Amino acid sequence: MIRFNNDYNHTAHEKVLEAVMNTRSGSYGGYGEDEWCRKAADVIKDLIASPDAAVYFLPGATQANFIVCAAALRPIESVICADSGHIFCHEAGSVENTGHKLIALPGKDGKISAEQIAAEAAGYYEEGEMEYLTIPRMVYISFSTEWGTIYSKKEIQEISGVCRKYGMLLFVDGARMGYGLGAEENDMTLKDFAELTDVFYIGGTKCGAMFGEALVVVNQKLQKGFRSYMKQNGAVLAKGWLLGLQFYTLLQDDLYFQITGRADGLAVRIREAFKAKGIPMYVESPTNQQFVLLTDDQMRQLEKDYIFEFIMKTPDRLNCVRFCTGWNTTREEADCLIRSIEALN
Amino acid sequence: MIRFNNDYNHTAHEKVLEAVMNTRSGSYGGYGEDEWCRKAADVIKDLIASPDAAVYFLPGATQANFIVCAAALRPIESVICADSGHIFCHEAGSVENTGHKLIALPGKDGKISAEQIAAEAAGYYEEGEMEYLTIPRMVYISFSTEWGTIYSKKEIQEISGVCRKYGMLLFVDGARMGYGLGAEENDMTLKDFAELTDVFYIGGTKCGAMFGEALVVVNQKLQKGFRSYMKQNGAVLAKGWLLGLQFYTLLQDDLYFQITGRADGLAVRIREAFKAKGIPMYVESPTNQQFVLLTDDQMRQLEKDYIFEFIMKTPDRLNCVRFCTGWNTTREEADCLIRSIEALN
Amino acid sequence: MIRFNNDYNHTAHEKVLEAVMNTRSGSYGGYGEDEWCRKAADVIKDLIASPDAAVYFLPGATQANFIVCAAALRPIESVICADSGHIFCHEAGSVENTGHKLIALPGKDGKISAEQIAAEAAGYYEEGEMEYLTIPRMVYISFSTEWGTIYSKKEIQEISGVCRKYGMLLFVDGARMGYGLGAEENDMTLKDFAELTDVFYIGGTKCGAMFGEALVVVNQKLQKGFRSYMKQNGAVLAKGWLLGLQFYTLLQDDLYFQITGRADGLAVRIREAFKAKGIPMYVESPTNQQFVLLTDDQMRQLEKDYIFEFIMKTPDRLNCVRFCTGWNTTREEADCLIRSIEALN
Amino acid sequence: MIRFNNDYNHTAHEKVLEAVMNTRSGSYGGYGEDEWCRKAADVIKDLIASPDAAVYFLPGATQANFIVCAAALRPIESVICADSGHIFCHEAGSVENTGHKLIALPGKDGKISAEQIAAEAAGYYEEGEMEYLTIPRMVYISFSTEWGTIYSKKEIQEISGVCRKYGMLLFVDGARMGYGLGAEENDMTLKDFAELTDVFYIGGTKCGAMFGEALVVVNQKLQKGFRSYMKQNGAVLAKGWLLGLQFYTLLQDDLYFQITGRADGLAVRIREAFKAKGIPMYVESPTNQQFVLLTDDQMRQLEKDYIFEFIMKTPDRLNCVRFCTGWNTTREEADCLIRSIEALN
Repeated sequence: MIRFNNDYNHTAHEKVLEAVMNTRSGSYGGYGEDEWCRKAADVIKDLIASPDAAVYFLPGATQANFIVCAAALRPIESVICADSGHIFCHEAGSVENTGHKLIALPGKDGKISAEQIAAEAAGYYEEGEMEYLTIPRMVYISFSTEWGTIYSKKEIQEISGVCRKYGMLLFVDGARMGYGLGAEENDMTLKDFAELTDVFYIGGTKCGAMFGEALVVVNQKLQKGFRSYMKQNGAVLAKGWLLGLQFYTLLQDDLYFQITGRADGLAVRIREAFKAKGIPMYVESPTNQQFVLLTDDQMRQLEKDYIFEFIMKTPDRLNCVRFCTGWNTTREEADCLIRSIEALN
Repeated sequence: MIRFNNDYNHTAHEKVLEAVMNTRSGSYGGYGEDEWCRKAADVIKDLIASPDAAVYFLPGATQANFIVCAAALRPIESVICADSGHIFCHEAGSVENTGHKLIALPGKDGKISAEQIAAEAAGYYEEGEMEYLTIPRMVYISFSTEWGTIYSKKEIQEISGVCRKYGMLLFVDGARMGYGLGAEENDMTLKDFAELTDVFYIGGTKCGAMFGEALVVVNQKLQKGFRSYMKQNGAVLAKGWLLGLQFYTLLQDDLYFQITGRADGLAVRIREAFKAKGIPMYVESPTNQQFVLLTDDQMRQLEKDYIFEFIMKTPDRLNCVRFCTGWNTTREEADCLIRSIEALN
Repeated sequence: MIRFNNDYNHTAHEKVLEAVMNTRSGSYGGYGEDEWCRKAADVIKDLIASPDAAVYFLPGATQANFIVCAAALRPIESVICADSGHIFCHEAGSVENTGHKLIALPGKDGKISAEQIAAEAAGYYEEGEMEYLTIPRMVYISFSTEWGTIYSKKEIQEISGVCRKYGMLLFVDGARMGYGLGAEENDMTLKDFAELTDVFYIGGTKCGAMFGEALVVVNQKLQKGFRSYMKQNGAVLAKGWLLGLQFYTLLQDDLYFQITGRADGLAVRIREAFKAKGIPMYVESPTNQQFVLLTDDQMRQLEKDYIFEFIMKTPDRLNCVRFCTGWNTTREEADCLIRSIEALN
Repeated sequence: MIRFNNDYNHTAHEKVLEAVMNTRSGSYGGYGEDEWCRKAADVIKDLIASPDAAVYFLPGATQANFIVCAAALRPIESVICADSGHIFCHEAGSVENTGHKLIALPGKDGKISAEQIAAEAAGYYEEGEMEYLTIPRMVYISFSTEWGTIYSKKEIQEISGVCRKYGMLLFVDGARMGYGLGAEENDMTLKDFAELTDVFYIGGTKCGAMFGEALVVVNQKLQKGFRSYMKQNGAVLAKGWLLGLQFYTLLQDDLYFQITGRADGLAVRIREAFKAKGIPMYVESPTNQQFVLLTDDQMRQLEKDYIFEFIMKTPDRLNCVRFCTGWNTTREEADCLIRSIEALN
């Protein structure tokens, strides 16, 4: 059985594991106040050309998501997101648990548009104060999205423009940042994210690390006391150097970008194999997540040798399933799957 | 410089690191639903002879603390703890952040007594309903405590008795469980904890793991939906097998108990060296944490070669400092410190 | 100018004011522990034939709504409601502020169906435990709804059946209970609400009182500590007798039902006047709230003499506006409006 | 039986009731956006000579307390108060329920000193960032205090100075503001409160109104969105004019100050009667609350004709009880009590 079910089923990239092993005899300061976290933060601030940004390393993405909301918003403020947004669908109400309402806009292939956001914001900001409404104060988007799609630079510029017009914060969930940046059609860079958003993160857990997300807080107002919010919500790892070290390792020699870009390439080849076979895609994705519509029979055939994720039954009784490559997927594994797709009867 | 500042300044025990490396080519199910978590949970349930207990693995201790409170308590319910309790002093208000009041009782060397708890509980439960008070519904104690002391079995039996009398839950913070159990004078076992408490945890982060706490929920009513609370608060690690694997490894051949017991022994030798030198202890501790009262001059001398933690200035201008051994502390390191203590002038 | 903008623009029914004046020289116990609250609760328990119900008097409806959610739900539990539900649209995120997610289903004229609720519930309860989802644990409906419509007894029986099947609580927002019960086509009674729901309230603020809602907690499990939740959220009025007294007065000789039923009758006459004039209704309502679609010109003509509420511009540029009668609306005021409608050119 | 148990056992001052009755035929805008609220706010802003202050009318004091905390503080920020503070002892954990820790300092007769506050604040602000601590960001004091005492102008100036030095907010609970200002030894004015604090309130419920507190937000940064916080927490009364009207009425011709000052005078006469009889006071109070230490026998004798509040048994088996006058207490009632005190055997 070969796993294509997700991008977090292997422990970590070989170089990450090696780096961890190399710390075995060292001793370090705790809580992220160590040399590795400093070095990793410096690498990231260089990459984004933002010396005044603050970089925090958190164990997981759900933590990053709800802690940013908790730290950035006052109780009366709410978050605009896509109705497929991870915070809306897959985090057990973690943002609402911090007291904030989510305003979910109907997404298209996982994306929301500047126009939709502007309409929602105008409904509040261009009227008089309405004390019975929450104040939409943050926009949350994912890059790549939960459906594997990516925003173009133009789209993010437009969204950023709406946010700045109304004084809303722009937050980018980058759990799959590497796969987004690695897509052939992508025209965004980390530096663009630093320029256009208030806060975003560079995902590690799904992109080669054992675990960890590098949260980049560009907006200096949000930096104040941020480590306290992390501690309050249990996201300050005692042995913080493990986080810094992993990111430092992944960001050497562009390793992070190479391994995620490679996975995107394999995914696109798999996508094309499905399409060549006449099998429709649920969403057209340029990244490592491919959502395919299989008949029951096709699904059964592929389930013999591959693990992939069932998403839902469509109204016309097809099975929307996800095939996911990762930094760990080998060319051989992808080739094997492609041959099986070609052999579907 | 040798670190005696805390028990989490080394990456992990050699066997843990080795086990992690051995997973490098495997692939696993996510979110703690994997073979290693199952095996580790089984080992723990065997150790405590409680097949109906549920075992959850969380990345960190602050998470364990506030998630247990959030999951177990209704908004009107509060937690009784010592005024030195980690949740009261060192977790940035994480329990209050979940909406619950802490009722801090004056501790003696980090411990509170059944008598104190009974008095507090009676003030609520033996009067009529008082809608202007919170309902004390949980008792939180630490084993070993923040001052290195431990409760005897008799003391915990008495506390447990008070809790059961009033329908209060008993929760034991076991971030340093290994060091507590390893103390020469200790008469508690993990099985005793399972019998006398509702929920407790076996600390990994400070006891040989890279990170992770094994939370044992004995009270079956608290198990319902517990994983949802973990997810909601960002404590479900994507690559959960890393947690299960570490605990499984540490619990083989009593490794966990050996390495922590050894550290306790070294700490006691250090303590005796201080006492032999006429240097007073702030608290008499049988575990790996030793709180010593140094003069400014003594502190300066030891600071040349050792890193240790300054706690506070006492009213009589002595320095309360902590020397902490760990699973990683070597006999040579301890001997070296002892010689330095003996050489103090 | 005659006000038809809402049902809370007059101080209180004459008999309520008189009763308040009559307390001027008395002295009373505080916090709702007084004779008037007891008497009012007894009247209500008689009316619903539920001696074991608990009746609490709260100053306002938003308080009733979020306090019921806070008291009844664990942090991981969510509330199913209509997307027009008052808690979803008009209470500034008060339920999310207590940490709970709202699952808003598309309503039809303000109502949701048992079928919709069952589909949503099945998505959680008929699958295995999914720790990344909140647990739908409560259904919130309004009677009458925010669009003036009412549920039939059969509809509420079906909804109640779904709730009981899945162990979900049914909560009825009765801020306009009087107007719902007073509708000619209504076939529900307060006793039916007591039988079919877990908790509901009898609105006072909009139905003749100065302020106040009588919350009826039928489900005994929800009664435990309820007054503490009220206090914690600032809903225990110091001079609680003012609340009990108002309800006691309104429930004498069916006054409550007469004044709201009368208002419904006037509203229906107004509705028919609009329809006779060929002016469409946005929603067909049998209660005191009438939502009408006016042209700009019609709106301008009526605005000269009447205050009513602008709701929104429809896609075809009509104005959805609300005309609201109340316990205080006189026959003369209604007649006057009807003549103005007839005179529209 | 004559009630001396509290200052909220009568409905309202005659003039307030009369004013309410006079609104019977009027109609008003909702939610505090009406002429009476505007007029009352203007009177208050004149009194405090602060045209830029914002005045909000809330139904109750617990609401005022926790809503100010919720609106003013970020989740990581905490509140310094006396250990006898109403928010710490008598509001069912309402502030913690909004997520904020209370730091309770040992009070002296209900008061805390600038020195104590400075020491607590310095422990945070004069050290480096400590992410494991909450940030003390607000100081809460009561005027008059829960033990009937008052702060002098000098004391409040000093506290205000400490707050401003560290950027902390100063919040004064004025549920008994009238009785505080009315004390013979008082040297504070409402204008002083406006100058020295960020937010305070003028209590209505205990000072002649049916219910209601006038919250004065002097600090303009705290005004932003404040009505939304009120709505979110259920403190926007639908018929808001009832609140404005009561304060407008009470503030005409100094009525508010006269009736509370009169009650203070009666209380002081009662205090002197106790002292003349050799009965000790628990606290020396210049306001309407008098805490007396009675023997069991004395208590029994007075209980025959008077209702007063039992507070606690002292270590030497005396009964600490409260005798409370109010705006409604008559000279005859006070004289009657004084005669009974003199007649104690």
